[in-house]
Amino acid sequence: MNNNLRIALFPGSFDPFTIGHFDIVQRALPMFDKIIIAIGYNSNKTGFFKLEDRVDWIKQAFYGENKIEVIQYQGLTVDCCNDQGAQFILRGLRTSVDFDYECSIAQMNKLMHPHIETVFLLTKPEHTPISSTIVRDIVRHGGDVSDFLPNGIKISISKHQ
Amino acid sequence: MNNNLRIALFPGSFDPFTIGHFDIVQRALPMFDKIIIAIGYNSNKTGFFKLEDRVDWIKQAFYGENKIEVIQYQGLTVDCCNDQGAQFILRGLRTSVDFDYECSIAQMNKLMHPHIETVFLLTKPEHTPISSTIVRDIVRHGGDVSDFLPNGIKISISKHQ
Amino acid sequence: MNNNLRIALFPGSFDPFTIGHFDIVQRALPMFDKIIIAIGYNSNKTGFFKLEDRVDWIKQAFYGENKIEVIQYQGLTVDCCNDQGAQFILRGLRTSVDFDYECSIAQMNKLMHPHIETVFLLTKPEHTPISSTIVRDIVRHGGDVSDFLPNGIKISISKHQ
Amino acid sequence: MNNNLRIALFPGSFDPFTIGHFDIVQRALPMFDKIIIAIGYNSNKTGFFKLEDRVDWIKQAFYGENKIEVIQYQGLTVDCCNDQGAQFILRGLRTSVDFDYECSIAQMNKLMHPHIETVFLLTKPEHTPISSTIVRDIVRHGGDVSDFLPNGIKISISKHQ
Amino acid sequence: MNNNLRIALFPGSFDPFTIGHFDIVQRALPMFDKIIIAIGYNSNKTGFFKLEDRVDWIKQAFYGENKIEVIQYQGLTVDCCNDQGAQFILRGLRTSVDFDYECSIAQMNKLMHPHIETVFLLTKPEHTPISSTIVRDIVRHGGDVSDFLPNGIKISISKHQ
Amino acid sequence: MNNNLRIALFPGSFDPFTIGHFDIVQRALPMFDKIIIAIGYNSNKTGFFKLEDRVDWIKQAFYGENKIEVIQYQGLTVDCCNDQGAQFILRGLRTSVDFDYECSIAQMNKLMHPHIETVFLLTKPEHTPISSTIVRDIVRHGGDVSDFLPNGIKISISKHQ
Repeated sequence: MNNNLRIALFPGSFDPFTIGHFDIVQRALPMFDKIIIAIGYNSNKTGFFKLEDRVDWIKQAFYGENKIEVIQYQGLTVDCCNDQGAQFILRGLRTSVDFDYECSIAQMNKLMHPHIETVFLLTKPEHTPISSTIVRDIVRHGGDVSDFLPNGIKISISKHQ
Repeated sequence: MNNNLRIALFPGSFDPFTIGHFDIVQRALPMFDKIIIAIGYNSNKTGFFKLEDRVDWIKQAFYGENKIEVIQYQGLTVDCCNDQGAQFILRGLRTSVDFDYECSIAQMNKLMHPHIETVFLLTKPEHTPISSTIVRDIVRHGGDVSDFLPNGIKISISKHQ
Repeated sequence: MNNNLRIALFPGSFDPFTIGHFDIVQRALPMFDKIIIAIGYNSNKTGFFKLEDRVDWIKQAFYGENKIEVIQYQGLTVDCCNDQGAQFILRGLRTSVDFDYECSIAQMNKLMHPHIETVFLLTKPEHTPISSTIVRDIVRHGGDVSDFLPNGIKISISKHQ
Repeated sequence: MNNNLRIALFPGSFDPFTIGHFDIVQRALPMFDKIIIAIGYNSNKTGFFKLEDRVDWIKQAFYGENKIEVIQYQGLTVDCCNDQGAQFILRGLRTSVDFDYECSIAQMNKLMHPHIETVFLLTKPEHTPISSTIVRDIVRHGGDVSDFLPNGIKISISKHQ
Repeated sequence: MNNNLRIALFPGSFDPFTIGHFDIVQRALPMFDKIIIAIGYNSNKTGFFKLEDRVDWIKQAFYGENKIEVIQYQGLTVDCCNDQGAQFILRGLRTSVDFDYECSIAQMNKLMHPHIETVFLLTKPEHTPISSTIVRDIVRHGGDVSDFLPNGIKISISKHQ
Repeated sequence: MNNNLRIALFPGSFDPFTIGHFDIVQRALPMFDKIIIAIGYNSNKTGFFKLEDRVDWIKQAFYGENKIEVIQYQGLTVDCCNDQGAQFILRGLRTSVDFDYECSIAQMNKLMHPHIETVFLLTKPEHTPISSTIVRDIVRHGGDVSDFLPNGIKISISKHQ
């Protein structure tokens, strides 16, 4: 029966999914029976990398790990949780600036859907500086980002802009 | 005579005016003889909600309260203060990230117009997560935001974008 | 078999255990099969309230909840986790100042015992200002703190200092 | 009649009262009809400077300013407000670390006495680094602190410890 | 021989170069044998002020100071350092929000080019509120910003947008 | 001649000197001609570890490095700089809470001795959680801290308290 399963949604734009995101999910696996990595997108605003590439990279990173599912969603994260039967939202925290922002989002979600709990893990110290924004910036300027992505992921040049 | 009156300007884009803004103004009423709620706008950049709607919602929220005035302004906030005879700028503080930003603005205003003082009240704990940005985001995704707005305000669908 | 159980340690000095602590544990219950509330003490440094009172208050607060256990410990929190078979440390986060401190502790624990994960929940907005330090301060000055403690807990006057 | 007066309490240990505190009070004078500078003390814990000296220095600093009163108090700040008929607590904010702490205190006071409002002014940029703690530290090490105190205040050597 | 020289790059968009930037460079001069002020630009995204004006204003500000060089660059800052033979990146820090951002950038640069060190000076208290963003905002609204720029710099009206 | 040398003071209580401190000094060596590691002590307040041990551990860590000198001092750090002919104070920054504190100290030092400049390097991500306070805490509880100290340093049990 489904009620006994602990299902977490790990939402984000993952533009791209970094080694920091990967590590958070790996460490959260023992806590949950299933983790749904949910790429939020917006039909009016394209990302830097193609949505299908972002999905593929994440699937590749977790190849063979059957507790992981990768989906795309539009709309409110809490609505996506309800659709997926997830009682938990999983988030990583990097810095105290992050904290203030994440805090507002999590508390608003809680006000709207009190039965959904947001659970935070801390980014490992060595992953703290790695954000998708900075990774995109390095790609944009022609730098090599392979050290900042999950093992074996090659960022293709088929980026949007 | 005007000199003896304590007049405060409460500036913002109020896109939209939240229950948090409302509470700050209510609590500040005993401190001032008049509070001017001043919606800053920019002819080049339209907001999410129509300017006239934003004005209406605020007027509705304070209906019958004769110490409140609602205006629109362009240009520098300190110039608007001078035009309105306001010696005080009223601001709410939500988080420490807010603080650093508000601090820079207030100190710059003070450097330009030393006789104008910015006065801060703290957002109530239960209003801390409510920001206009997050409220807009929920509206954009089809969520219900009536709990985050002053009593009785219905956000119409005549939004800009 | 024990391996399949998800056991979390909720460590602190709980001097006293506040309504904020109580709420964090309540919200974490669905995530874990057992939560051990562990009062860290130091034989050289007595707390404000008696250790036995602190234990009693927590037991009272969770009376009838069989997933909760209350213990005392000395020494490193990670050693206590190993002794108790807990793979998770549960912590509440209130503010961004909290965050920087909790972050250092959690990351050091991780460096020493990589298999133990620290999991954070956010304090509810209305509990954000409530810390044990401030509660003690109010008690010290003769104020009433019953609103800041779990339901029905009466702080006795048998405090240490 | 008293009800129409706006009375603020400016509480602190003022050990010592710095040029930063002085500036906050000066700038707040136009907002209030009376400002009561209230030195909180604790019979169990002596300060670095003698209580009577701290009182004298503040009186000297505001000599001739009839909207200022200087008092000492024990117990809760909100109780002192009630005793003095003050509806406002005045505080200065220096940094974002300050902010998180002041925020908790102000919100707790509000929970206990909803009719008392805490009002914040920002420390001027050039006074930001000046805290009583650092001033005491310089005195302890034999440095000259006269630039960090209100004009004309000479810190005597009759300090406690 | 070049190896013995200590060369620092001071990168930024300097849109515009403020009195705060100027002060950081002045104070860093005794530490380095040469400071290269490097205006990063992006062919897809024009700034508020013309690139050539920004270069001119900086050159004017340091007229006669032969340890200063002004350049423009595209691409990664660390690559620019390598091209210029700079082992150091110089940055100013204003606030703790600044800190978290600068920290991520500096640590990422260090991960990519371990031999390049980022060195921070703190903005003087009186310059803390002055950021290029706020200066642009004042210009946009018709305010006078000459106090916030290096001595003698007159912002021309030939701005981009 | 002395004037041309760039001499930095690296002050702290170093109770104990961690691998984080070590790394900051190593990375700062190319910037300066001499770095004086200055252990501040207070005759009224003993540290956790013996002063002579703290000195020895630092000397051991930098054995053979002739740009390093280790001293003890009492009184103001800026006075120590003047005595030692140091124009620079070197500090490491770990977190944004650190930042606000370090900022106040550095700005006060600058107000007292404008010719002395405080220079900051950022702690490496993997050293961010390591503070002397946490290391002492682990020692106090019987944990192993050798990973958090410079290579080869063995913390003896001859600690003070």
